[in-house]
Amino acid sequence: MEILEAVRWGPDRRSVRIIDQRALPERQVECDLRTLDEACDAIRTLAVRGAPAIGIAAAMALAVAVTPDVDAPPEMRRTRAGAAAAALRGTRPTAVNLAWALDRVLRVAQGPLHGTPLREALEREATAILDEDRAMCRRIGEHALALFPRDARVITHCNAGALATGGIGTALAGVYLAAERGDRVRVYVDETRPLLQGSRLTAWELQRAGIDLVLITDAAAPSVMRRGDVDLCIVGADRIAANGDVANKIGTYALALAARHHGIPFYVAAPASTFDAATPTGDAIAIEQRDGDEVRRGFGVATAPAGVPVYNPAFDVTPASLITAIISDRGVHRPPFHFAAP
Amino acid sequence: MEILEAVRWGPDRRSVRIIDQRALPERQVECDLRTLDEACDAIRTLAVRGAPAIGIAAAMALAVAVTPDVDAPPEMRRTRAGAAAAALRGTRPTAVNLAWALDRVLRVAQGPLHGTPLREALEREATAILDEDRAMCRRIGEHALALFPRDARVITHCNAGALATGGIGTALAGVYLAAERGDRVRVYVDETRPLLQGSRLTAWELQRAGIDLVLITDAAAPSVMRRGDVDLCIVGADRIAANGDVANKIGTYALALAARHHGIPFYVAAPASTFDAATPTGDAIAIEQRDGDEVRRGFGVATAPAGVPVYNPAFDVTPASLITAIISDRGVHRPPFHFAAP
Repeated sequence: MEILEAVRWGPDRRSVRIIDQRALPERQVECDLRTLDEACDAIRTLAVRGAPAIGIAAAMALAVAVTPDVDAPPEMRRTRAGAAAAALRGTRPTAVNLAWALDRVLRVAQGPLHGTPLREALEREATAILDEDRAMCRRIGEHALALFPRDARVITHCNAGALATGGIGTALAGVYLAAERGDRVRVYVDETRPLLQGSRLTAWELQRAGIDLVLITDAAAPSVMRRGDVDLCIVGADRIAANGDVANKIGTYALALAARHHGIPFYVAAPASTFDAATPTGDAIAIEQRDGDEVRRGFGVATAPAGVPVYNPAFDVTPASLITAIISDRGVHRPPFHFAAP
Repeated sequence: MEILEAVRWGPDRRSVRIIDQRALPERQVECDLRTLDEACDAIRTLAVRGAPAIGIAAAMALAVAVTPDVDAPPEMRRTRAGAAAAALRGTRPTAVNLAWALDRVLRVAQGPLHGTPLREALEREATAILDEDRAMCRRIGEHALALFPRDARVITHCNAGALATGGIGTALAGVYLAAERGDRVRVYVDETRPLLQGSRLTAWELQRAGIDLVLITDAAAPSVMRRGDVDLCIVGADRIAANGDVANKIGTYALALAARHHGIPFYVAAPASTFDAATPTGDAIAIEQRDGDEVRRGFGVATAPAGVPVYNPAFDVTPASLITAIISDRGVHRPPFHFAAP
């Protein structure tokens, strides 16, 4: 099974090649980000999205941007690298992964080179970030697969798949590995209103991989469960509090409630970097509020009266009590959860 | 408070005046259905929708259609009335209310007139159907209001409002009466994917009536409940089994599960004609499956890859165990429910 690569090197490692997620699901368009401006624009406009994918793309873009300064005096090189990193960092100021990945490349760009050519050192660091992410996805997938029955019927929400990472995704990693070992896995895909990451992205990448999928509206999930057609739920996470409360795309909590009612296991799959030991419980997680027009005019047409008030949180918090297990690259975490600082 | 009239007589009672629901929420367009063809077309294309509203519109349209035959020989009059009723009946073959309303007008058109002019008798029967529906809505509203706290914060799904009836709706009747007595009532409106009856219709009619509303995506409902912002849920019903299981728009079951988890009362409001004593439980209710393109290309835009399989049930079944009370024009029914034939 050939899984798409959402982010990788362009020709001669002089650009960052991404799948432009703004064109999905209608067209698969790849574009090469050759300049700092192109990279910033791609991240800002969600051409590349998903915390791991953003971090990788930014790290590679920084390496590309700094390369022409290989012969510049060290002081100028440090200044220019710092400015480029700041521009990339500013595109999604709250993305933790983005800052972390940029800092790794920046340390190389600004630090001593110990005889390695600058370009090679930058490429190596950015490639390491990509490779580590791929390995992380695979480890999550292996831990998840151990929890899957044969030919599992899975339900997922939003997109925590290959399009969101450098590898085979987080929530979908187990699905890809199940297909790889020959399972006839089936995925029910919540469309995920308002931005439809499920129908636009998850449905697209599963269809492309030849995996059996059924698209449903978010509120149809309990009906599918009631029919006995679901073995397990698995979703990603944006932040996991120390007690195991999980912030993820709006609608995750509704899915977890339905799973509990029907006695279906509810799994969260995410890199260990998503654990936030400094946040004791989900109550301490600030929920981003987004523009009401995402709901009022979601498809470019008015689907609600102009000016109607909208409550449009980007995320919700699923309490740890509804979560069967949290699957990270470190293993399977069972309740009671206690995520301490590493 | 002036509440809209989804269906009423046009000038001189020579047409049926409806609010064309296909134009909502962008424009409020009224149109007069002057001929049988216009009436059939309006019902078939959902210009008028909601079981009670369809029945009323069809009854009035039949009265209008038969009126020119006032001087025809009785046999010809009967034949023509029968053909007109059959045409209207065929527009939505599964709508129980439609057949019932047509039969009432047909009995007048085909029966003995006892000295009353035909036109007057037909008008009187169709008007009676409209007036009875208005009174039924108000009785449901009064029974519902007795269950509302002062300044209730309500959540509803789909549209069981004035647009679906001849009066003030079923699920929304209590809301309108609360506003009428001076309550500061607030309604959280589920957008109701895939056809968005919540955002297109319920939001529109509440905004028009000056009632405080907040539009949400369906899967955001549990987050609103978790904030402590909801006092009660109230929804309509398409069919109610003898044991109290309720078939209603897809997503109703998800809302009921969330209400149960948060300890919020879940009410169903519907005319007693919705009780189906011949259906023992919800398991016996056949669920209409609708076209996948409602999910894949909801508004003319591809929001999912072409050809992706979709499971798109029109309704779901909420088990009686999740329902706090069923409110009909006959009163408030509490569990255990036993709806016998009248």
